[in-house]
Amino acid sequence: MLLLSGGVDSTTTGAILREAGYDLYALSFDYGQRHRIELRSCYESAKMLRAAQHKVVEIDLRAFGGSALTDEIDVPKGREIAEDIPITYVPARNTLFLSFALAWAEVLGARDLAIGVNAVDYSGYPDCRPEFIEAFERTANLGTKAGIEGTRFAIHTPLVNMTKTEILREGLRLDVDFGKTHSCYDPAPDGAPCGECDSCVIRARAFAELGIPDPAITAIS
Amino acid sequence: MLLLSGGVDSTTTGAILREAGYDLYALSFDYGQRHRIELRSCYESAKMLRAAQHKVVEIDLRAFGGSALTDEIDVPKGREIAEDIPITYVPARNTLFLSFALAWAEVLGARDLAIGVNAVDYSGYPDCRPEFIEAFERTANLGTKAGIEGTRFAIHTPLVNMTKTEILREGLRLDVDFGKTHSCYDPAPDGAPCGECDSCVIRARAFAELGIPDPAITAIS
Repeated sequence: MLLLSGGVDSTTTGAILREAGYDLYALSFDYGQRHRIELRSCYESAKMLRAAQHKVVEIDLRAFGGSALTDEIDVPKGREIAEDIPITYVPARNTLFLSFALAWAEVLGARDLAIGVNAVDYSGYPDCRPEFIEAFERTANLGTKAGIEGTRFAIHTPLVNMTKTEILREGLRLDVDFGKTHSCYDPAPDGAPCGECDSCVIRARAFAELGIPDPAITAIS
Repeated sequence: MLLLSGGVDSTTTGAILREAGYDLYALSFDYGQRHRIELRSCYESAKMLRAAQHKVVEIDLRAFGGSALTDEIDVPKGREIAEDIPITYVPARNTLFLSFALAWAEVLGARDLAIGVNAVDYSGYPDCRPEFIEAFERTANLGTKAGIEGTRFAIHTPLVNMTKTEILREGLRLDVDFGKTHSCYDPAPDGAPCGECDSCVIRARAFAELGIPDPAITAIS
């Protein structure tokens, strides 16, 4: 059960699990994110990863408000990437996403959940840290029929201790086409990345460190 | 932040918190449950409890399937209420509901979440047990900005160790109109309870123990 946004991290996570022999059931969300291109990327990624099934669940986080990714708040640009939690934080997002993944996994009989969280270049999100993932795994095993009956859920986070550069390198080894992945928090209407938000900056630095062009940029320019 | 289904337990939970001085923000779900009357009851309950706000979030659990409450599976009737997990179990339901409550609470600045779970007459659901609630609370405090910045979330479960009879007694003391609450897993199209599912049986036993008629039955007959 792969949480798939269509970005670098979730797509690479899928490629790692596929290599490990798992069949992939990909789960994406239409949560009123402003960058609708994320949805297009998740379909492309699911196809690239040859997922056995792909579901897109609609959840209306805008009803609650509270984030630059769902509200009409300006995404910060050109700032130093700091250790504090940015305005692009979406309240309880990974808790919600993992809860849906858990529900679907239990119905399918799947016990392995995967999420592309990363605690190195993680841009300050609390719900990308290993302590959070461990706490959710415990919750999953206490709050489900499958969990308390003894077939335990495991949450896989193969990228958690990797830098973005290491993630790209691993993805390239596994033939991920990063030209089809999307990272920008505030793309232009045609899908072109802004190049200035945290996510664009982290991605650009990683491609620069590898000394190769970003195929998503090349595809557009 | 009150999770409100419009049943005996969530309505009584709300009344207890209101008495304790909390303003109530009620959250209900339209999750494709077969008993649509549950939705009507949650509006009635929110009104009765004078909630400051009431939101109904639509989530499509039917997309995943797997429960008598959302699928076209017969609700078991007339069985002995056993310790095993019944077919009416909805995968990861309370994990999902609490995740949405957490998201809204964080946006509102609320730190107190309440859920009417009950581990005595709980009919076998794993996600009604105190261990699960504690694990979710820990997850909430690790996976949110508010939690890790130190204003901790608390999940209140005032009914967790009460029998259904004790819950009714407490509700009556707090002027809950149980005629407006709904418990049945498989009501008739007019909303009349079946009288035979686990939930009806537990409710009927409790009213019988108190020696008073169930106003929801009286209202219909």
